[in-house]
Amino acid sequence: MRSTVTPRAYRAHVLHTPTPEAFEVVEHGYVVVEEGRVRSLGPELPEDRRDVEVHDLGDRLLIPAFVDLHVHAPQLPMAGVGLGEELLPWLEHHTFPLEARYADPAFARLAYQRFLTAMWEVGTLRFSAFATVHTEATLALMALCRESGLRALIGKVAMDRHAPEPLLESAEESLRGTIEIIERSCELGPEVRPIITPRFVPSVSSTLMRRLGELAEEHDLPVQSHLSENLEEIAWARRLHPEAGSYAEVYAEHGLLRPGRTIMAHCVHLTTAEQDLLHERDVTLAHCAQSNADLTSGIMPVRRHLERGLRCVIASDVAGGHSLAMNRHVVASVETSKTWRTLHPEDPPLTLAEAFHMATRAPGAFLGDVGSFEPGHEFDALVVDMPAGPLGHSPLERLEQFVHTGDDRAITHRFVAGAEVPRPFS
Amino acid sequence: MRSTVTPRAYRAHVLHTPTPEAFEVVEHGYVVVEEGRVRSLGPELPEDRRDVEVHDLGDRLLIPAFVDLHVHAPQLPMAGVGLGEELLPWLEHHTFPLEARYADPAFARLAYQRFLTAMWEVGTLRFSAFATVHTEATLALMALCRESGLRALIGKVAMDRHAPEPLLESAEESLRGTIEIIERSCELGPEVRPIITPRFVPSVSSTLMRRLGELAEEHDLPVQSHLSENLEEIAWARRLHPEAGSYAEVYAEHGLLRPGRTIMAHCVHLTTAEQDLLHERDVTLAHCAQSNADLTSGIMPVRRHLERGLRCVIASDVAGGHSLAMNRHVVASVETSKTWRTLHPEDPPLTLAEAFHMATRAPGAFLGDVGSFEPGHEFDALVVDMPAGPLGHSPLERLEQFVHTGDDRAITHRFVAGAEVPRPFS
Repeated sequence: MRSTVTPRAYRAHVLHTPTPEAFEVVEHGYVVVEEGRVRSLGPELPEDRRDVEVHDLGDRLLIPAFVDLHVHAPQLPMAGVGLGEELLPWLEHHTFPLEARYADPAFARLAYQRFLTAMWEVGTLRFSAFATVHTEATLALMALCRESGLRALIGKVAMDRHAPEPLLESAEESLRGTIEIIERSCELGPEVRPIITPRFVPSVSSTLMRRLGELAEEHDLPVQSHLSENLEEIAWARRLHPEAGSYAEVYAEHGLLRPGRTIMAHCVHLTTAEQDLLHERDVTLAHCAQSNADLTSGIMPVRRHLERGLRCVIASDVAGGHSLAMNRHVVASVETSKTWRTLHPEDPPLTLAEAFHMATRAPGAFLGDVGSFEPGHEFDALVVDMPAGPLGHSPLERLEQFVHTGDDRAITHRFVAGAEVPRPFS
Repeated sequence: MRSTVTPRAYRAHVLHTPTPEAFEVVEHGYVVVEEGRVRSLGPELPEDRRDVEVHDLGDRLLIPAFVDLHVHAPQLPMAGVGLGEELLPWLEHHTFPLEARYADPAFARLAYQRFLTAMWEVGTLRFSAFATVHTEATLALMALCRESGLRALIGKVAMDRHAPEPLLESAEESLRGTIEIIERSCELGPEVRPIITPRFVPSVSSTLMRRLGELAEEHDLPVQSHLSENLEEIAWARRLHPEAGSYAEVYAEHGLLRPGRTIMAHCVHLTTAEQDLLHERDVTLAHCAQSNADLTSGIMPVRRHLERGLRCVIASDVAGGHSLAMNRHVVASVETSKTWRTLHPEDPPLTLAEAFHMATRAPGAFLGDVGSFEPGHEFDALVVDMPAGPLGHSPLERLEQFVHTGDDRAITHRFVAGAEVPRPFS
């Protein structure tokens, strides 16, 4: 069923969230795909496409592929380990020693192949990832990603202070590596692009932050970092930058809150002024509910952020989050918002449709026309085999079951931009 | 590797929690099993058992099988569905219509086979389950359980008020069915035993509660029910029993808090007096963190309960909880206690060892000498294949990874009371 540029249609129970309000469900519907994009979705083939080749997926579900805008590709080998600690000691004892291993190209290559295969398995077919500080390993991840058929923004991590020696670069080295990646990754085409990636305020000097901001501006690149995850981390960032009004302002003052082009992960403990600043810059907030629970960081007030008009998406934050599977993070986000609701009865919890939108359409919007089956959207899709079972569940109930209880075994086909993606590196 | 009464030993990385304080890890250790029970655990075979047949499990992990003391066997087909509602509407719209289907013996038989196979898959080999009000279907579940090789307490649900018509019995009918089950299940032997199961105060009349209490006393049977899950449910129970000092006292006054023989699920919003009462009666509190999040019930203050000396175990509460897999509930309980900790910094979160103990040794104690590899304990075990990976993880780190990220695919063998249990009903 690997597709080409030939127009074709897929027939299945189609479910997606063009808006956060509700799932649109078209039972036994037709998605017509042309040149990698959705041309139409409806209960019948359109008049002028009656002769298109139809792939009948039978009683299966067709849903948008997941998009994860905050994941640490090198950390997958430690998923689930060391979560008895909070952020800063966890970084020191587990994360940094593992990331140091990526100085070894053979280690990096194997680990990144496994990462990409695992992303493919769970149906996350586009993402924005932190790599490590290593230029060669980051370029290897980018090339492997291109080879896999997945699409991504991938960033060399910038750290020139408060990091262990093996991961420490000078501002000059870090910048030079980032420029090298920008130049050498051009040949990979638009499918895999660099993203400016200061790790977080405590590990990047003012000099480097400022020059990364200039570089982002010069090449019109997106930016990703961490913001306001953990109380000790926030206090540290504030101590390091007494001149700034807030943690978020440090990024702003260094040119790292590029309007509409910035992802900030966590945003658990934002001040009102920070929320206003992120809103003004149209920053995308990556809500990492599982990670925030795993590392005892707190609860992001996602309903309040949404009501203030902040752009929120759901992300895995592997390996702060222990699971790559975005359906688990959809559930974790809904559950966390319900727990918040028991403490703040005035804040309604996330609906499943809202959370699904935040794992498909909302993060897809950061990357382009991605994340739903609206006409003009790139056809990124998963075919899901969840039987109606003894109760004759509706397609929507079957999607609820897949999101809550399903795993990669239920995903039978994966498409990116109209092309079926086979298992990579197997 | 199916075992018999012949003494034998298993060699593997052995991990268990004889106490909540820490995992005991014996790398490449030997568990000697005789007549279904653990005779010894150590780094070598004991002097007097040097000639025993050794099954070398290589680099795999050997851990106690999971024990789930609160699960609704009939509800598995709806796992993950309808969780946008809170307890009372969810019961009305989803649970009760499904449970009514178990009036049909063919439906019940097939659904219960699937339930037992699913329990086997995830490694929960002993449990205490609610069935439905249907006497025949409950007996069928008991017989199928015996056939499967799993061991359980199984209760016919008592409801004689405030239930939809198809599930409503008179007190007399309910009692007669319960007695019939007690009598007819004798032939199944000690492996599958009945448990007195009033659904919860709102759906059982005083008359029926009192007679169930008498029946439990007469046959020395354990009791299971729900307590203090949801604020509306609590208010309803209080309105129905203005004469009682609390929700918990209603059970006590009807003879349903049998000392050391009672499981009460949820216990989210207990008063201090209720905590004292449960402590005095040595009640086992089934903590259902995932369910409490799914149904917006609140957070059970598990650390405070443990510090008061209350006996707490972790349970799935399928289908209030959406997953059968106890490793997921171990993680959910730790995560929830971490979220609680961010709101109450004075309460340390559960450690992984404590939570694992609460899913193996603590619930096993309700059933007998079950849940760890201490000498004299029945040998209930899972063999887990989690490779050391590129980082050369220790056995304990590999257990952390299994608990957080593993599923049934990692479990290669399952033992109950010394005998390997093959996949049932496949």
